Amino acid sequence: MNQMNIRVYENIMGANEAWAAKTKEFLKEKRIAMFNFIGSPGCGKTALLETLARYHQVKMAVLEGDLETTYDAERLHQWNIPVFQLLTKGGCHLEAKMVYEALKDLPLEGSPLVIVENVGNLVCPAEFDLGENGKIAFLSITEGEDKPAKYPYLFREAKACVITKLDLLPHLNFNLDRLLSFIKEVNVSLPVFQTSSLQNKGVKEFLNWLKNYQ
Amino acid sequence: MNQMNIRVYENIMGANEAWAAKTKEFLKEKRIAMFNFIGSPGCGKTALLETLARYHQVKMAVLEGDLETTYDAERLHQWNIPVFQLLTKGGCHLEAKMVYEALKDLPLEGSPLVIVENVGNLVCPAEFDLGENGKIAFLSITEGEDKPAKYPYLFREAKACVITKLDLLPHLNFNLDRLLSFIKEVNVSLPVFQTSSLQNKGVKEFLNWLKNYQ
Repeated sequence: MNQMNIRVYENIMGANEAWAAKTKEFLKEKRIAMFNFIGSPGCGKTALLETLARYHQVKMAVLEGDLETTYDAERLHQWNIPVFQLLTKGGCHLEAKMVYEALKDLPLEGSPLVIVENVGNLVCPAEFDLGENGKIAFLSITEGEDKPAKYPYLFREAKACVITKLDLLPHLNFNLDRLLSFIKEVNVSLPVFQTSSLQNKGVKEFLNWLKNYQ
Repeated sequence: MNQMNIRVYENIMGANEAWAAKTKEFLKEKRIAMFNFIGSPGCGKTALLETLARYHQVKMAVLEGDLETTYDAERLHQWNIPVFQLLTKGGCHLEAKMVYEALKDLPLEGSPLVIVENVGNLVCPAEFDLGENGKIAFLSITEGEDKPAKYPYLFREAKACVITKLDLLPHLNFNLDRLLSFIKEVNVSLPVFQTSSLQNKGVKEFLNWLKNYQ
């Protein structure tokens, strides 16, 4: 007979909110801005971070979220970015406690900016507050125009949207105006940045927005 | 005072397994094969279904999983594919009960093949048995070579892997051999199909595999 037929959980979301609040306080005290990068697997989150370090000499620290492997952290390490790897071991999103614990150990001197690169997933990470200043929605143009309507939660929660891989536009059957109008339908006031990390285009504009975000 | 401080759940995974078992029985009785298509948002799951209908006259029915919108179902409807939309309303994966209920209502005469197109997500859908004959892992080459290692659960569970958007290969900094070796590392015996739905390449080989899968 299965004795574990009923599982009892604490109020998980409540606990997450408490850790997120502690993080918010910590960031405020240290005068650090933290942004939470969210998007599909392979949408170009790490590539944008590489471009920020390589071409714009951005001082930042990164908390790198993955299920397995330290590949992305290794990529960032090459550009002398202080980076900590958070492995979820199968989990589909980062939670506030993981971020808080790692944040306290990060070498933050001279890094007024912390980026959390969440697990590649357009759904679950949008639902978890990490105490960040803002969530950033990433979308590669290879994913098609309709994704903001099909995955609206992230685009409603986000403070900015970064469209990636614009360099591939000539090779795709893709209508950029259609994507922009889908974004507007979901979140009319969302700032949108059209970028190519490969060509270092639109990245400066996004960086200026990050620096000036209150 | 919050009276809902403790949440009590039934054994959710247990219930899912029971519904999956009922589905398995139903499919066996009706002599229907059901496959569960899983991959990132915009990786080309719907495009492959369109190509199967358009160029290969495949008789099939589709259960279309999405958080919101009926866009994919509308695309398939144009090709006279019997399609039912399953909306998760924010949920990150399909569960067995939703599939079982819809399956019973689908017009299945002359459709020995049912495809479940899961929510676009490389993580969560891999963990839920829907009673399918096999999960199929989709991966677009625009996502990068390392995804099987970074999201290994799906690639371990899958019975076949469909690599999509091969037509974009000349325009990407992408090493196909590196992807194939990452797949092998995770699941050495996984059959892999290299496809372009746009050019109708590799689709026939995948279809033959589907038809012959026991």
